[in-house]
Amino acid sequence: MLRVGLLGAGRIGQVHAVNIAGHARSELAAVSDVFTAASESLAAKYGARAASSEEILADPSIDAVLVATSTDTHSDLIEKATAAGKAVLCEKPVDLSLARALECQRRAAAAGQPVMIGFNRRFDPNFAAMKAALEAGEIGKAELLSVTSFDPAPPPVSYIKVSGGLFRDMMIHDFDMAAFLMGGRPATVQATGSAIVDPAIGEAGDVDTAVVTLTYADGRIAVIKNSRRAVYGYDQRVELLGSEGLLSAANMLENTLSKSTTAGVTSAKPTYFFLERYMPAYEREWDAFVSAVLDGAPMPVTLGDGIAALALAEAATESLKTGLPVRIDPAPAMAAGEPVA
Amino acid sequence: MLRVGLLGAGRIGQVHAVNIAGHARSELAAVSDVFTAASESLAAKYGARAASSEEILADPSIDAVLVATSTDTHSDLIEKATAAGKAVLCEKPVDLSLARALECQRRAAAAGQPVMIGFNRRFDPNFAAMKAALEAGEIGKAELLSVTSFDPAPPPVSYIKVSGGLFRDMMIHDFDMAAFLMGGRPATVQATGSAIVDPAIGEAGDVDTAVVTLTYADGRIAVIKNSRRAVYGYDQRVELLGSEGLLSAANMLENTLSKSTTAGVTSAKPTYFFLERYMPAYEREWDAFVSAVLDGAPMPVTLGDGIAALALAEAATESLKTGLPVRIDPAPAMAAGEPVA
Amino acid sequence: MLRVGLLGAGRIGQVHAVNIAGHARSELAAVSDVFTAASESLAAKYGARAASSEEILADPSIDAVLVATSTDTHSDLIEKATAAGKAVLCEKPVDLSLARALECQRRAAAAGQPVMIGFNRRFDPNFAAMKAALEAGEIGKAELLSVTSFDPAPPPVSYIKVSGGLFRDMMIHDFDMAAFLMGGRPATVQATGSAIVDPAIGEAGDVDTAVVTLTYADGRIAVIKNSRRAVYGYDQRVELLGSEGLLSAANMLENTLSKSTTAGVTSAKPTYFFLERYMPAYEREWDAFVSAVLDGAPMPVTLGDGIAALALAEAATESLKTGLPVRIDPAPAMAAGEPVA
Amino acid sequence: MLRVGLLGAGRIGQVHAVNIAGHARSELAAVSDVFTAASESLAAKYGARAASSEEILADPSIDAVLVATSTDTHSDLIEKATAAGKAVLCEKPVDLSLARALECQRRAAAAGQPVMIGFNRRFDPNFAAMKAALEAGEIGKAELLSVTSFDPAPPPVSYIKVSGGLFRDMMIHDFDMAAFLMGGRPATVQATGSAIVDPAIGEAGDVDTAVVTLTYADGRIAVIKNSRRAVYGYDQRVELLGSEGLLSAANMLENTLSKSTTAGVTSAKPTYFFLERYMPAYEREWDAFVSAVLDGAPMPVTLGDGIAALALAEAATESLKTGLPVRIDPAPAMAAGEPVA
Repeated sequence: MLRVGLLGAGRIGQVHAVNIAGHARSELAAVSDVFTAASESLAAKYGARAASSEEILADPSIDAVLVATSTDTHSDLIEKATAAGKAVLCEKPVDLSLARALECQRRAAAAGQPVMIGFNRRFDPNFAAMKAALEAGEIGKAELLSVTSFDPAPPPVSYIKVSGGLFRDMMIHDFDMAAFLMGGRPATVQATGSAIVDPAIGEAGDVDTAVVTLTYADGRIAVIKNSRRAVYGYDQRVELLGSEGLLSAANMLENTLSKSTTAGVTSAKPTYFFLERYMPAYEREWDAFVSAVLDGAPMPVTLGDGIAALALAEAATESLKTGLPVRIDPAPAMAAGEPVA
Repeated sequence: MLRVGLLGAGRIGQVHAVNIAGHARSELAAVSDVFTAASESLAAKYGARAASSEEILADPSIDAVLVATSTDTHSDLIEKATAAGKAVLCEKPVDLSLARALECQRRAAAAGQPVMIGFNRRFDPNFAAMKAALEAGEIGKAELLSVTSFDPAPPPVSYIKVSGGLFRDMMIHDFDMAAFLMGGRPATVQATGSAIVDPAIGEAGDVDTAVVTLTYADGRIAVIKNSRRAVYGYDQRVELLGSEGLLSAANMLENTLSKSTTAGVTSAKPTYFFLERYMPAYEREWDAFVSAVLDGAPMPVTLGDGIAALALAEAATESLKTGLPVRIDPAPAMAAGEPVA
Repeated sequence: MLRVGLLGAGRIGQVHAVNIAGHARSELAAVSDVFTAASESLAAKYGARAASSEEILADPSIDAVLVATSTDTHSDLIEKATAAGKAVLCEKPVDLSLARALECQRRAAAAGQPVMIGFNRRFDPNFAAMKAALEAGEIGKAELLSVTSFDPAPPPVSYIKVSGGLFRDMMIHDFDMAAFLMGGRPATVQATGSAIVDPAIGEAGDVDTAVVTLTYADGRIAVIKNSRRAVYGYDQRVELLGSEGLLSAANMLENTLSKSTTAGVTSAKPTYFFLERYMPAYEREWDAFVSAVLDGAPMPVTLGDGIAALALAEAATESLKTGLPVRIDPAPAMAAGEPVA
Repeated sequence: MLRVGLLGAGRIGQVHAVNIAGHARSELAAVSDVFTAASESLAAKYGARAASSEEILADPSIDAVLVATSTDTHSDLIEKATAAGKAVLCEKPVDLSLARALECQRRAAAAGQPVMIGFNRRFDPNFAAMKAALEAGEIGKAELLSVTSFDPAPPPVSYIKVSGGLFRDMMIHDFDMAAFLMGGRPATVQATGSAIVDPAIGEAGDVDTAVVTLTYADGRIAVIKNSRRAVYGYDQRVELLGSEGLLSAANMLENTLSKSTTAGVTSAKPTYFFLERYMPAYEREWDAFVSAVLDGAPMPVTLGDGIAALALAEAATESLKTGLPVRIDPAPAMAAGEPVA
């Protein structure tokens, strides 16, 4: 039984709490949040105790922590938690700064504790089925990947300003999806983008619509499309063309009802946003973490994976600025013992 | 090259004219219609001559006739045309009277000319693919058939009155579909129905909504649903459950566009009515007739098939009246040499 | 907060336990089962106590019981629990005997405690959306209902023998679906069926494939298709044709992946069986029960609804035996104060 | 009635012959081909005469010619035919050389005869419905276009060598689709590509897999994906994200049959290649040309449209070579009176 401290009792922390408490091999021992009312309420619901993050990290009875706090605390908490001997599952991104993330990786590796980054989409049943079909050779060799990833509505501009930009905040998931499905790292990154949804996003120095093309040394290509606004809901689709076929993962819909009238045939929209769409993914993600920690298996998503995605986000940011493709270093400096992808 | 006389230049006659003229092995020689303007116009378009049906039947250079006249003339024209030594493709139904149809069958058999009945749906690419998959054993042994067959809008009540009723006029296609897919003939027919779409149809002695269940001696079951009104278009679907799977033939849609908005995801409606939906079927039907005649092969749909469907329509009419199931004679009287189904 | 005793710790009891424990307004207080190991294990997981059903019914701190035991105990437990002052959610069917169910209804009504019958499909998001669309007038007036309900594989013949037969055991859900969507009760029931999937089921006096047609006094028609075997999974679809359109609820699939190869385009199968398909329905069902009890609202599915479905199952059983339609009494004897449907 | 000379009796010429002969307002007068057997056979089928292209152009009774010859003859034939006073429908591309195409445009403009370029996809019912929905404001303002265009199998390398390369030969259709849906011309073109399907294509100096991103001055983006091989068939899909929704045009399938077994749910593949997929488009294209010529309306697709697509193909070719984005001249030199797009 894994005794778990949950750092962060916000929206995503609450999703994790359900899974931690409901899992056969884990229990929710303690919850912290900068808003104590939030941690107390969440702890009470699951028979856990509310505490500060310091108390949780200092508690020897706690085996693992789940970091669901704001992005700017991730690196610090990973370092402190691993130094305190705890296994860590940390929400993405590791950090907005690649340099800081590499430093974090070095220290975590020194502490010798397992760290998993919460790229939840790898655990989505649809994308996981795609990966399995690919590995089973069902479409031969991968050639051309296409990722569509649209949010239902843009966040407030105040959030945009501290988000690190679309590539680090939003497309980072898609960079990891490319790594998940294509393996290895691309040779080049080319980004285009504009603030066509909301000019205020442009004034804040960011884009809201972007297309990034990744090329791989062996000739494979990946293209990622992002928009901050798809009014019909969260649009999350992946297609992979291979030498012997095509794999497509479509959206999950709110329900299976269709209505045929003189106006046409109308079906339900995609599930609204990430909490609805990825609820099963969060549950499977937690199961993967618990199993890996308790069974001593390798982390299914490593700190190195988080850093690799961040590196692509930095490259895309640069490409967008210069209008030119950016070459990716095939052999990046990296803490020993922490394989990438 | 098959030289063809077309009897009837109405809506369906015009469809056939295109196929006769366009087929590599047939040519449209003559066209007749009770409205001479119609036959003249249609004949002119394809370089054929307008003539009376008597002239066409008397013309020794004409090898075959396609009967696309009103139902009450079908039996007579089949008899006259076969007596005149011509191969015949006749639109369904053979006749509204089973006794008359059997007499027609007897005489046509005596004349020794091939007669095909235009059950166009057997040639629909979707239903034909279903039949092929079934015969290839792809779902094992058939167990439960379900036919959905809705018209977009009811015909005028004046038509209803001379139509022979829903079972002879509309469901006869579905009885033939059951014969096509299930083979043999059912043991019992149970009909229910009502005039819920339009009370005037009820006052005319007919129903506009009906469900008929066929049971077979070996335990198979078929259920047919008819409605005279599906406001979204012509709804023509078939499902067949077998011991190793399910085959489903869905509607053909006007186009493949879908629109996702806050109101949902809207797709195109089914093609509006039989001319749109079954255009490819009419073309394949004609090809099957031409090939059978010129190559001396058996007719793909026989006069016996037309009579078998009519017999089920009569049984359903009786079942609806009495509220009781009607038993079907397993070995009906039938003209020698004319196999059923 | 509703304190709940769960009677029955089998497969379906375990599903309910998750929902009872996870609901914000209920807690799992105690669990009973004829196999004490099962109740102890399930109780331990949720911090509840294992007890006998007698102890649970005698415990004044328990507000409600969920009856998830074998069918032959349902009537007794409903009576005892309501007599003990507890609200009851009981799995379907109420009883295999209509007379016994009516007696149970009379006694429960006398006890004055709310009783809900677990027709889970009413809470399926897809069918619930269909009901909502119908009530919103989106397809005008209902005319023709079609329910497809196939199990993935037949149960053991030993189960068939004690099940009460396909109509009471399996189609009872579909009879309730007809009541849910069509309202009122039908005028006639016509059943056909056969043991084509497994002759041993026929030797046990039951059928495994059946079609039942319901007619309503106002001309509406419903047709229900059942098969004990659809090798591709649990096939649960409903279609409703109305004067202004069609509503269709399709299956939920295992995932949204499709694979296009030279062999065609392959998608995932329907979720395998009722636990997978109706997991969200069970959660919503529990929420509806808790809300009704705590807020003093009417039960969303009554004991009368359970009896109405059972009455149709009896009628279908008789129709199958005689081969004739069975007329349904429009005003059945019923305990006062317990409305039907 | 438009009297038409068909130049070229190959595969695509035969498709056009059917439409010319079948149209109510046009007739096929003559057919030419470098292989006289081909022109004679095709002419005979439709009661036309076989002739040389010179004879056809010199025949004053012929009003229009359809140019379906090899690409290297297009410019010459457009010039000669317009000089001979004939309206022209010419298959794409105008020429492999942009300079030559501009010269052709200048001369055709001087001749004052209408010229239409056969970008058949604009007449595909699905893409035409998308354009209509966009213009009707159904998704607000366009923001992000995505075109998927995969051929079923690569052509022989011998063809690749004379094709002008993937961008001029294959993606030119997609450049025109972008023009059709987005209007105007892009500001920049960025191309990536590789010969991952067949190294021999790479050795011939071409790519077989490519992604091109177009950016527009107003912030809109279009991305086009091409592959020479999709083993499951001709994959032709377009998606357009707008401020108020998404439009998607899916593939047309061989039939609507699906099969559910233990192996999953299998549907038909997309129609195999362009002749099958775009058969209705060619028919509508011809109707649009005939109507425009006979009614004196503007050509629905102009020589300028053909040149605009060719200009993007040249830019993409350069971008692929340099690895850098290419800026498109917003106001290109162009023959007077011939508007672009």
